[in-house]
Amino acid sequence: MKVLTDGGSIDIRAVWFEDNKVKMIDQRILPHEFKIIEFSNYLDVAEAIKNMTVRGAPAIGASAAYGMALASLQEVDLLEAATVLKSTRPTAFDLFYAVDKMLEAAKNNENLVTAANNYADQIVDKCRKIGEYGAELIADGNVIMTHCNAGALATVDIGTALAPMRAARDQGKNIFVYTSETRPRLQGMKLTAWELLNEGIPHKIIADGASGAVMRKGVDMIIVGADRIAANGDFANKIGTYDKAVLAHELGIPFYVAAPVSTFDFSIASGKEIVIEDRSEEEVTEIDGYRIAPDGCSALNPSFDMSEAKYVKGFITEIGVLSPSEISRINSAKL
Amino acid sequence: MKVLTDGGSIDIRAVWFEDNKVKMIDQRILPHEFKIIEFSNYLDVAEAIKNMTVRGAPAIGASAAYGMALASLQEVDLLEAATVLKSTRPTAFDLFYAVDKMLEAAKNNENLVTAANNYADQIVDKCRKIGEYGAELIADGNVIMTHCNAGALATVDIGTALAPMRAARDQGKNIFVYTSETRPRLQGMKLTAWELLNEGIPHKIIADGASGAVMRKGVDMIIVGADRIAANGDFANKIGTYDKAVLAHELGIPFYVAAPVSTFDFSIASGKEIVIEDRSEEEVTEIDGYRIAPDGCSALNPSFDMSEAKYVKGFITEIGVLSPSEISRINSAKL
Repeated sequence: MKVLTDGGSIDIRAVWFEDNKVKMIDQRILPHEFKIIEFSNYLDVAEAIKNMTVRGAPAIGASAAYGMALASLQEVDLLEAATVLKSTRPTAFDLFYAVDKMLEAAKNNENLVTAANNYADQIVDKCRKIGEYGAELIADGNVIMTHCNAGALATVDIGTALAPMRAARDQGKNIFVYTSETRPRLQGMKLTAWELLNEGIPHKIIADGASGAVMRKGVDMIIVGADRIAANGDFANKIGTYDKAVLAHELGIPFYVAAPVSTFDFSIASGKEIVIEDRSEEEVTEIDGYRIAPDGCSALNPSFDMSEAKYVKGFITEIGVLSPSEISRINSAKL
Repeated sequence: MKVLTDGGSIDIRAVWFEDNKVKMIDQRILPHEFKIIEFSNYLDVAEAIKNMTVRGAPAIGASAAYGMALASLQEVDLLEAATVLKSTRPTAFDLFYAVDKMLEAAKNNENLVTAANNYADQIVDKCRKIGEYGAELIADGNVIMTHCNAGALATVDIGTALAPMRAARDQGKNIFVYTSETRPRLQGMKLTAWELLNEGIPHKIIADGASGAVMRKGVDMIIVGADRIAANGDFANKIGTYDKAVLAHELGIPFYVAAPVSTFDFSIASGKEIVIEDRSEEEVTEIDGYRIAPDGCSALNPSFDMSEAKYVKGFITEIGVLSPSEISRINSAKL
C-alpha cells in the first residue's frame, strides 16, 4: 500500500517477516502515529491479534501464519502454538484456516517461514484479482460506500472491499467513496479514510447513523468485506454491516461483499451458526482512553453482526463475482 | 426531571425564566459537568439555540419563547427578535411555532414572560399526556430502543420518547432501554443515558451501527422523537432515525414516534419538502475538541434524516396514539 511520507511515498505491507521477526504496522495508533512493531515470540503475535494491533480477517490469518513460523523458529510445540493462536479471536475464520495450513506445511517438513510468506503472497494475489473483478462493476463517476476497514491494512496489501476501488482508480475511473466511521473502534474513519487519503482517492467520512441518509443522497453501490461466510451466503462482518445491508436492500442499491474464497466456511450451513463475540463495553464508553459516557452507565458491544445472503447482490472473489446462488462453485475452488 | 446530587436528588427543568433571566442546563458539557447558565439578552438565547447549549425541538421552542420574553423586557423590536430567533435552526418547526405564538401574545398585549411560562408549562403538560398514552403500549418486562435525546432535556421536562418509559416505570413496570449513542454529538450516550441513570431506569448504550444486531437480540419496540412531521406522517429526526425505522420495519418491530401535536406541520404535504441541514464536519472528525480523523480527511454531516410514514406504527401524542392514517385528526386538535 502507498503511504505518504514527508519526502514522497513508500510501498509497504501491513504485516511481513524480516530478520527472523514478524513486523507489522501498529493499527491501534493510526492515523495519528505511523509505527512498525516487531515480534520475536509467537505469544506476542497472538497478543497483537487479540489486542487488535493487527485486524481484518486476512491480515489476522497472515499474522497467525507468521506466528506459526516464529513458533517453529522458537522450537516450541506447534500444536500448542496453534491452539494459542486460534484462541485469539472467535469469529475470524481465516485465522483457523491459516494456522491449519501451517500445521499441514509442518507435517510435510516445509520451512514455515517460506510457507507463511507464500500464504501472505497468495492473499495479496487474491486481493489483486478481487480488485480486477470488482473494478468491472464500477463505472466512471460512481459513488461507493464502504464500512470498517477492508483495505490493505486488513489484508496484508491492496484490500478486499478497497481493492476494486484501487483498481478502478488505476483504470482511470473517477470514483468517490463514503466511508462510515465504524464505531466503536472507528476503523472506517481511522484506517479506511487514511488509506484513501494516502492513495489520493476522493472520499468523505460519515457517521454510521448517516448511512441511510447518504445512500438516499446518491450511492451507486456498497462494497464491504466479510469475516466469515456460511455455505448459504449469510456472512458475518463488523457491527453496522447488517444495518447497511438492509438499507441498501430497501433502497435498491447493489450490495457487494468482497472476500477471498478462504473466507467461505462450508462447515456452517447458515449465519445462524456464526457465534458473535461481545467485546468490552469500554470500546463504546471511551474513545482513545477518554471517557465519553456518563459515569455509572454501561454499554453493550456486539463486535460483529450477521447479514443474510438475500441482501447480497454478489460476492467479489478471486475467482470472479458470484451471486449467492452460485457460491457452491467456491467449494471446488478451495485450495 | 430528577437529577442525582451528592446528598440526594433535585427536580429541575431544562430551561426556565427566573429573576428576569432565561436559565438553562448547559447540555453541551453534560454528562461530565452539570451547570446552569443564565441569559439577560435575547441574542445570547439565540446563540445558545444555535450552538446547541439547548437542543430538542420542544426545549428549543420554549427557549425561543423565553427569548421573545427577554426581547420584550429589553424593549427591542419584537419582529426583528422573531427573525433572529427563527433563523437559528432550519428544521425545528417548534421554533417557528413558539416565536409566532409570542408575536400573537404581544399583539394581544399579553405579558410575554407569562405567555412564555404558559408555553413551557403546556409543553410539560403535553409530555405528561404523551407518557400516559405511551405507557399503555408498554408491557411489564419490555425492552425498548430509543435514539438521540427525546427526554426531559429536550422538552423542558419529562420528555417525549422518554415520557412513556418514565410513566411505565412509575406504573411499576420493569423495562429495559437501549439508547444508541447518536453520533456525531452523542446525545443518546451523553444525555439520554444520563437521564435514565438519574431516573434509575435500567439501560445500556449501544453504537449506532449495532441497532440492527441489538434489535434482533430482542427489542419489543422503538420509540423516538421527531423534529418535524409532515401532513402525511413523514418525519424528520436526528440522523440515524431513518436507519432504525427501516430496520424495525424489516424485523417487524413496532416503531413509534412520540411528539406533541405542535410538531406536525400541515403546511408541508410530505417529507420531500423537509430541508435537511448539513452541520459542520468537525462534529464527525472531532470528539469534544479532540481530532479522531486523519489530518486531511473531511466528513459529510447531515444532521437529520427523513423517514416515511409507512415505517411508523403510531404517533404518540398528547391526544392519543394515532396511526399515520389518523393524523388528519391532529389538524383540528391544534391550538
